[in-house]
Amino acid sequence: MKVGIIGTGAVGGYYGALLVKNGFDVHFLLKSDFEHVRNNGLMVESKNGDFVLETVNAYFRFQDMPRCDVVIVALKTTHNDLLKSILPDVIKNKGIIVALQNGLGIEKDISEIVPSAAIIGGLCFLCSNKMGPGHIRHMDYGSIRLGQYSKDNFSVGVSKELKKIVDIFSKAGIPIHIAENLGKARWEKLVWNMGFNGLAVILNATTEQIMKNKSSRTMVNEIMLEVIQGARICGFDIDDSFAEIMLNATQQMIDYSPSMKLDYDADRPMEIDTIYWRPIQEATKQGFDMQKSKILAYQLDFLNRSNRNKI
Amino acid sequence: MKVGIIGTGAVGGYYGALLVKNGFDVHFLLKSDFEHVRNNGLMVESKNGDFVLETVNAYFRFQDMPRCDVVIVALKTTHNDLLKSILPDVIKNKGIIVALQNGLGIEKDISEIVPSAAIIGGLCFLCSNKMGPGHIRHMDYGSIRLGQYSKDNFSVGVSKELKKIVDIFSKAGIPIHIAENLGKARWEKLVWNMGFNGLAVILNATTEQIMKNKSSRTMVNEIMLEVIQGARICGFDIDDSFAEIMLNATQQMIDYSPSMKLDYDADRPMEIDTIYWRPIQEATKQGFDMQKSKILAYQLDFLNRSNRNKI
Repeated sequence: MKVGIIGTGAVGGYYGALLVKNGFDVHFLLKSDFEHVRNNGLMVESKNGDFVLETVNAYFRFQDMPRCDVVIVALKTTHNDLLKSILPDVIKNKGIIVALQNGLGIEKDISEIVPSAAIIGGLCFLCSNKMGPGHIRHMDYGSIRLGQYSKDNFSVGVSKELKKIVDIFSKAGIPIHIAENLGKARWEKLVWNMGFNGLAVILNATTEQIMKNKSSRTMVNEIMLEVIQGARICGFDIDDSFAEIMLNATQQMIDYSPSMKLDYDADRPMEIDTIYWRPIQEATKQGFDMQKSKILAYQLDFLNRSNRNKI
Repeated sequence: MKVGIIGTGAVGGYYGALLVKNGFDVHFLLKSDFEHVRNNGLMVESKNGDFVLETVNAYFRFQDMPRCDVVIVALKTTHNDLLKSILPDVIKNKGIIVALQNGLGIEKDISEIVPSAAIIGGLCFLCSNKMGPGHIRHMDYGSIRLGQYSKDNFSVGVSKELKKIVDIFSKAGIPIHIAENLGKARWEKLVWNMGFNGLAVILNATTEQIMKNKSSRTMVNEIMLEVIQGARICGFDIDDSFAEIMLNATQQMIDYSPSMKLDYDADRPMEIDTIYWRPIQEATKQGFDMQKSKILAYQLDFLNRSNRNKI
C-alpha cells in the first residue's frame, strides 16, 4: 500500500514522517524543499522525541509519483488550485483522499476533481511549524479528528474507508478521534480558527497576548459566539458554551502564533477564503449575516493584498 | 472680549492663531510646547498663506489665565478629565464654551462642569497637523460646523450665543456652517470618523490606501451604513446615501492620516471612548447592537493598551 503526501510542510511533513517511521511506504511531493529533502531527508524535532529520516521518497513533479492507495492533501488551501491537475494523476482507482486542511468547502472541491475517490476530512489539533527546509518542529498536541465526507453533510458514521485511515494513522502513533459528522467538526474547528487566526494577524499578537487583554478576550468570545450561531443556522448543533470551552483550552495552551499569522509574517498568502469567506457565505445562504467575522475577513483581505504587493 | 484656548495643538493652535491674526485678544493654555511658544510664538504653515505670531499670550497654568468671555476647548478628548478643574476657573460668568472636539457626549460632560455656561459644539473639517512645538501645518479645508447644545438633543436653532460665535469666527476668516441640530451634526461627523479613524490605525493605512483597496473600501461603506443606522435609531434622520457622499468626498481629498492614526503613531492615547464607545453605547440604549463598530473599538482598545505599555 502506497501513501502520497501532497504538501510536505508543518502538517504533511510531520504526519508523513510519522508514517515512514512506522513502516509505511510514503511518497512526498515537495516544491521549495525538494532538493534539500532529497539530499538530506526530513528532520522532526518533537516533544515526543526527535528523529531524522535520512532518505525519503521525494518528488518535485507529481507526474513522477506512483499512484497511491491513500493520498493525504496537506497543502495550504491557498494552493488548492493545484489539486485539479495533481489528484487525478496520483490517486489509484477507488483510492482514499484524506484532506488535512482548515476551513470549509475542501472536500466538496476535491469530490468534483475525483468523483470516484472516497474522501475523508481531517482536522489537525497540532502545534507544529516548519523551521527550515525539511525541518519540522512539533511543539504540542498532534491528534486528528477524522470524518467521512458526504455531499449532504449528514452524519454517515464510520465507513470502511474511514476505518482504514483510522487504522493506518493509529499504527503510526497518531492519536485519532472520529467525528460522526464532518460538517459539524469543521464548524467546531472554525470556532477557534475564526476567533484567533485573523486577530493574531490584525493585532500582531500571539494567543497569550489576545487572552491577556480584556478587550481582545471579550472580542474573541463574541466572534466565537457568532461562528457558533452560524454553525447552528447551517444545521450543526453547537452549544454556546463551546466558546468558553475553547477559550479555557487556549488559556492552557502554550503561547502560540496561529498558522495564518506565520503565513502573514512570512509574506505567504493567507487562508482567508476557506477559513473566513466560505463559512460567511454558507451562513449568508441561510439568511444569517456574520457581521463580526466579515469585518475580520475584509481586514485580512486588505492586509493580504498589501502583503503580496511587498513581494 | 477675551478668548481662551484650552489645548493648543493642530486644532486649537490653528484657529487660535487665526483669531489673533485678525485682532482678537486670545489666551493660550499649553503644556509641552509652553516654553517654546512663549519664547518663539506660533508658526502656521497654511495653504492659505504662512504666518508667524511672534508673541502670544501663553500660559502653563490655567490659574494664571484671565477669565474669558469665550473658551474654546480643543484638547484631545483623552484629556477631558482636566476640564473639571480648568473650566470653572477660566470662564466668565455667562461665558460661552465652544467645544471643538470629536465624538459624542462632549457637551453633556461640559454642561455638568459649568452648568451656567452656554455651550456650542463645533465639528472641524480641517486637515492640520502639529509638526513640532508651536508649529502647525494646515493642509486642507478648515471650516467648522457650529451648533447650539441642548440637553434633549432637539434642534434649538440659532441662539444669540451661537450668533456671537459665528460672528467671531467669521471675522477671523474661518468658514462657518450652522448645524440646526448639533446631535445630528455630531453623528454625521461620526459616519466618517468611525469609518476611517479606526481602520487607519488597525490596517496601518492612509485614507487613500483604504479607498484604493476593494475590501477595505467595501468595509468602510458597511461601517458607515451601520453608523447611519445607529444615528437613525437615536433619533437623527440621516439617509443611507450619506455614506456614498462621504466616500466620494474622501476620494477627492488629499491622502490623509486621520488624527487617531497620528495619535497612535506618536504613542499618544487614542480617542476611542468618544469616537467609538459612546455612540455604540447610545445605540445600545436604543436596542441596536453596532456589531461592526464594536469589533473596531475592541481592536483599538487592544492596540491602545499595548501601545501605552511600550511607553
